[in-house]
Amino acid sequence: MDKKKQTAATWFKDLQDQICNVFEDIEQELSGGPKADLPAGKFEKTEWERENTDEQNASGSVLNGGGRMAVMRGRVFEKVGVNYSLVHGKFSEEFAKQIPGAEESNGEFWASGVSLVAHMHSPLVPAVHMNTRMIATSKSWFGGGADLTPMFPDEQDTQDFHAAFKTCCDTHDPAYYPEFKEWCDRYFFLPHRNEPRGVGGIFFDYLDRKDWDDNFAFTQDVGKTFKDIYATLVRRSMHKDWTPEQREHQLVKRGRYVEFNLLYDRGTQFGLKTGGNTDAILMSMPPEVKWP
Amino acid sequence: MDKKKQTAATWFKDLQDQICNVFEDIEQELSGGPKADLPAGKFEKTEWERENTDEQNASGSVLNGGGRMAVMRGRVFEKVGVNYSLVHGKFSEEFAKQIPGAEESNGEFWASGVSLVAHMHSPLVPAVHMNTRMIATSKSWFGGGADLTPMFPDEQDTQDFHAAFKTCCDTHDPAYYPEFKEWCDRYFFLPHRNEPRGVGGIFFDYLDRKDWDDNFAFTQDVGKTFKDIYATLVRRSMHKDWTPEQREHQLVKRGRYVEFNLLYDRGTQFGLKTGGNTDAILMSMPPEVKWP
Repeated sequence: MDKKKQTAATWFKDLQDQICNVFEDIEQELSGGPKADLPAGKFEKTEWERENTDEQNASGSVLNGGGRMAVMRGRVFEKVGVNYSLVHGKFSEEFAKQIPGAEESNGEFWASGVSLVAHMHSPLVPAVHMNTRMIATSKSWFGGGADLTPMFPDEQDTQDFHAAFKTCCDTHDPAYYPEFKEWCDRYFFLPHRNEPRGVGGIFFDYLDRKDWDDNFAFTQDVGKTFKDIYATLVRRSMHKDWTPEQREHQLVKRGRYVEFNLLYDRGTQFGLKTGGNTDAILMSMPPEVKWP
Repeated sequence: MDKKKQTAATWFKDLQDQICNVFEDIEQELSGGPKADLPAGKFEKTEWERENTDEQNASGSVLNGGGRMAVMRGRVFEKVGVNYSLVHGKFSEEFAKQIPGAEESNGEFWASGVSLVAHMHSPLVPAVHMNTRMIATSKSWFGGGADLTPMFPDEQDTQDFHAAFKTCCDTHDPAYYPEFKEWCDRYFFLPHRNEPRGVGGIFFDYLDRKDWDDNFAFTQDVGKTFKDIYATLVRRSMHKDWTPEQREHQLVKRGRYVEFNLLYDRGTQFGLKTGGNTDAILMSMPPEVKWP
């Protein structure tokens, strides 16, 4: 298992680099639209580490480890955060009850993953979220997904995004796509607005139903699929002009993103309430938002 | 008790009008600063009602009643919401356990109050929150408070705000102020940032320790005190110029306000998750926010 953990963590860190490289390429390519005169963005990467402490945080858990935050404020990407992390420690008794295999591991856990949220200058380019992770207690599993939040849903974009993940899923198991797409729609929904956050994608968790190698290969494919299809969608629309009215609509729509993340998102709630790295967790917040 | 409920509700609605009138006066008075050329703001008032339904909402509670939302987007007040409401119904069994006297009332409850959040154009004028309410199950009590969120804390403003509420409290009971001030500091705190939301004020709940008349008189005094002291602070600084850097700081500070309201505020969480009026509840969101 130690070797598997290392293999997965190495992949997540490599995926972070791959994605950052593609997004920096995109920044270079911009040739039209209101922001074309700005300089192309570059990622700032910050390593963080918290080790050798047995201190319980506010939740009664112990959390050690570290990661690498990468953030870019560019001319295509208004703000994009791509975070790699590898943490380990001990859940509180209370929390261990909610996590598969954690009571049997006496609360000990290990987790590594990469998570990404992109907020774009152009209201014609969808915002996006992607996350893939491996978690180990006395059990181990993969989880993650990707979902698209266009400000003005475009049928072709939506179709292509879904089709890419269908192909990715079907390669591994024809049962995956319908299940993971539905899970995504169910999860990224704002009950108080009675509206979905975006147009969906896929969402999966507790994936340990096949052998580790296949689960890992699937998780890798989700990351690669995301990288390719999202780059395609960005390049498709990034050179277009937009109107102040379209920008205004985007700023309001981003408010829904904030509402979802702070009210409902399990990762955000868990991270903030258990003493995680606030800067890394809240890197998902949009750079500018309106509730008019 | 029916007469008391009516008396309290009538006061809350009257307080809403009083506050709206003072804030509209302030809009008229503006004579300097970057927004002086804009037209003076007026409140838009919207009555809402939901009656004669026994339908349980998502939380398993039944909520009937109505209210009057008042919102103004002016030249001093960038966005201010002042909401009056009077609701009644039946808590779910689950929820009734958490509310004093609600198990004995078979879940039946009644609540009326006024709540207010003001976000100002000027980063030199503090944002503010005020709420007062009466709740009845088989017991009845008052709750509420007011707290100030300056973008650039000014010692005189902070002193005067606290002094006004100290005077208000001391008139009723010398024990109130220290207790309610400390409660406010404890409540309006963002653990994930390890920072207070603002400079505090007072916060009280479950107030039924004296006779109803005195509790009601105190609650009225909190509303009046708020109206007078906040108007004083706004008039003190509203004519001043501000810099783009000060405005930027304000937009970032507002992000903390959003984080508090969506992550921790009991009223917001309860309201949104039990099928309350989303427009009224989220009127507290700032008009423009940045997480740079």
